[in-house]
Amino acid sequence: MQLYGYFRSSAAFRVRIALNLKQLDYDSAFIHLRRGDQSQPAFLGVNPQGLVPALEIDGQTLIQSLAILEYLDETHPEPPLLPPDAAGRARVRALAQIVACDIHPINNLRVLRYLHRPLGHDQTAIETWYNHWIDSGFRALEGLLAGDKRTGAFCHGDRPGLADIALVPQVVNAERYRLDVHPYPNITRIFATCMKLDAFAAAHPERQPDREE
Amino acid sequence: MQLYGYFRSSAAFRVRIALNLKQLDYDSAFIHLRRGDQSQPAFLGVNPQGLVPALEIDGQTLIQSLAILEYLDETHPEPPLLPPDAAGRARVRALAQIVACDIHPINNLRVLRYLHRPLGHDQTAIETWYNHWIDSGFRALEGLLAGDKRTGAFCHGDRPGLADIALVPQVVNAERYRLDVHPYPNITRIFATCMKLDAFAAAHPERQPDREE
Repeated sequence: MQLYGYFRSSAAFRVRIALNLKQLDYDSAFIHLRRGDQSQPAFLGVNPQGLVPALEIDGQTLIQSLAILEYLDETHPEPPLLPPDAAGRARVRALAQIVACDIHPINNLRVLRYLHRPLGHDQTAIETWYNHWIDSGFRALEGLLAGDKRTGAFCHGDRPGLADIALVPQVVNAERYRLDVHPYPNITRIFATCMKLDAFAAAHPERQPDREE
Repeated sequence: MQLYGYFRSSAAFRVRIALNLKQLDYDSAFIHLRRGDQSQPAFLGVNPQGLVPALEIDGQTLIQSLAILEYLDETHPEPPLLPPDAAGRARVRALAQIVACDIHPINNLRVLRYLHRPLGHDQTAIETWYNHWIDSGFRALEGLLAGDKRTGAFCHGDRPGLADIALVPQVVNAERYRLDVHPYPNITRIFATCMKLDAFAAAHPERQPDREE
């Protein structure tokens, strides 16, 4: 099993967490996004979309982090990343998608680059953009976590799952862009709980072999 | 069952298609996004994220279109929206997520509005942005469809499913922004096949009661 990733990619970070939770061993291929490895023919042969992560597993290449997480959960059910009931699964998937659809893609490197060029925005405008979308999503998430009895030590009950896997890398990004996270007490509490677990801590960008400043 | 939607919302369009394919009756509540209904307390009480769709079903409110589609498929399995094998499901979810994560959110109304104000871009720059992200995603999708024997009359085999449900509204958006879709022959072929089905055609924005110019 080989994971194509980049230390700072949130989507790759999610897959690293899931592989750790499932205790699955994997090799890593490092795709240097800032240098443009993702647009080279070698990687486009792996993933024509030119994005990480991609996971080679069971004789095929999977792309899109949420699809990979669902596959891992179906093929390696323990520990489960989704609750046993349909309503719970819908809740957890929705929480994960608030991050994975409505925050992260808008703040993806390729989008930030487009804001810089051709659109001509400076770093301050780009940071404001970045934190605007995190704040918008985190406010919704915080409300949904605070207002639901199914929230426990983690986003859903007392076991880490898909929603936590999506949330933690986004909080790391928020910290990196110095967003004040105090307005989101459930999010910061759950983040701290997750980071005490090896599966999350070992997946952190700062602990990856391809880490750079 | 009540669907909170807007005729022009791609994400609501997806849910309309799925409800039609599953032959589920529903009532509609129309949330006028251009007028700002989604930010009013009445709707924030339904969905704190202030986005459509939201679906009231089985005594709960579900949000996030892909999570809703998975819930509908789990609770009303016929006809299935996902293939029976894990590898097929991973493929179909990934194709859907290319649209739902990597195209649609970047072109969402709230993002286009942010480009206009505070960022100050005009309609031409916004249309260029819009089509840039569709083209980027469609090129990847086209390659993945063309290069895989599992592609059939639809994105995956000869039955419509989750990937087609994500794709069709995005093609409608591309047409609306006058993107030349000739570079994507598999996408346009599958789109035409889908639009011959009542479940897709009846869900089209132009056929919704809240339709406006």
